[in-house]
Amino acid sequence: MRFTSETAADGVSERSFSLGDVTGVFWSPVGAVGGPLVLLAHGGGQHKKAPGLVARAHHFVRACGFSVVAIDAPGHGDRPRTEQDERARALIRQRMAAGEPVFDEIARDNASRAAQAVPEWQGVLDALPGFGPVGFWGVSMGSAIGIPLAAAEPRIAAAVFGLAGDLLVEAARGVRIPIEFLLQWNDELIPRETGLTLFEAFASEEKSLHANPGRHADVPHFELESAGRFFSRHLR
Amino acid sequence: MRFTSETAADGVSERSFSLGDVTGVFWSPVGAVGGPLVLLAHGGGQHKKAPGLVARAHHFVRACGFSVVAIDAPGHGDRPRTEQDERARALIRQRMAAGEPVFDEIARDNASRAAQAVPEWQGVLDALPGFGPVGFWGVSMGSAIGIPLAAAEPRIAAAVFGLAGDLLVEAARGVRIPIEFLLQWNDELIPRETGLTLFEAFASEEKSLHANPGRHADVPHFELESAGRFFSRHLR
Repeated sequence: MRFTSETAADGVSERSFSLGDVTGVFWSPVGAVGGPLVLLAHGGGQHKKAPGLVARAHHFVRACGFSVVAIDAPGHGDRPRTEQDERARALIRQRMAAGEPVFDEIARDNASRAAQAVPEWQGVLDALPGFGPVGFWGVSMGSAIGIPLAAAEPRIAAAVFGLAGDLLVEAARGVRIPIEFLLQWNDELIPRETGLTLFEAFASEEKSLHANPGRHADVPHFELESAGRFFSRHLR
Repeated sequence: MRFTSETAADGVSERSFSLGDVTGVFWSPVGAVGGPLVLLAHGGGQHKKAPGLVARAHHFVRACGFSVVAIDAPGHGDRPRTEQDERARALIRQRMAAGEPVFDEIARDNASRAAQAVPEWQGVLDALPGFGPVGFWGVSMGSAIGIPLAAAEPRIAAAVFGLAGDLLVEAARGVRIPIEFLLQWNDELIPRETGLTLFEAFASEEKSLHANPGRHADVPHFELESAGRFFSRHLR
């Protein structure tokens, strides 16, 4: 993990890094050398420093005292896009513009990125051996990556998932850690029933579905605080 | 409101009272003369000082600084039972023992108690004019009473409901305040679909469904803390 820049404000240190081909950012309480770590995965079309991610990272650092790491997903942010990335994106945009459902296209695109992203996240954990226990926060494409990651990776102790459907059911059956699962009641991308089916599939003894009115991007702000308390309960 | 006894421990004052035919208990921070008030309604077969209610009241007083009031529902606790109460209970017990569904019987019994309990709760609010804003916490029979109460009573600003089904849909359509709604994923008394239908019916702009695995009585402890934070957000 090669750190390329560091800034600090309001008690939060922010360091950009690269790890092989992967670009990322690491937030922590200034001076932290260990303690709980939250992996923060962005949604499709976003990147490691999208405003929602930065706000979430700052909340976890300042309200919970955690360290937080985000990486650009394959084909996102500072990472190169392949021709296949561009084709998949163009197809999704085209179908959305035509008012056609894009659920299957997005799920297929997410699955191919997840296959690449799971070992990348494991590499990030290998590069931060002094930190833990480890939580994972990621919804939408972040869950498409995080659910198979949590099924494969015993270092992850608790996770917030959501805004995802039943194509992840098989992976979810392998997840046994405590989860909080976000569902948007009027999600225009994920049919409600498929979200409920995915929640049902997790093998976790503790799993809590939080459903709120609104569309895919309308997760209410209070769910951020709820996630912070959920992680505080399980990572402390 | 005639106070009949007072004790105090750990900073929590507990006063029993009667108000006409209604028996109740009032918890508050020692010395409180106003501030947010939570109405606490018990479930069927319980009473105003059932262990779960006392624990909940202490949490709201100590962690949130609220005052809390609970009353015995009609035919419960220190209040007389009518012959009709006894008949309804016997029927429910008999059907449960035979492994038969009791959803309709419980709903009918709850509806008749709610018709009596709604004006009783309004009387309690009249008797505590110095307190507010007001929240309501009640699941199962507590929601059968609380949902029509919240629809009728503008003094209630936020509510936690749950463990209830679609026979309350009409009342829920009249509820516009923020709610947190508890659903037990494996509830043996309330079919899951009817709980989801009830959640859907609330007219509230902010409503948050919290679904957890387990049976009717297995609501996890962390939902108590969640309710405290929900009320803190809306009653402060």
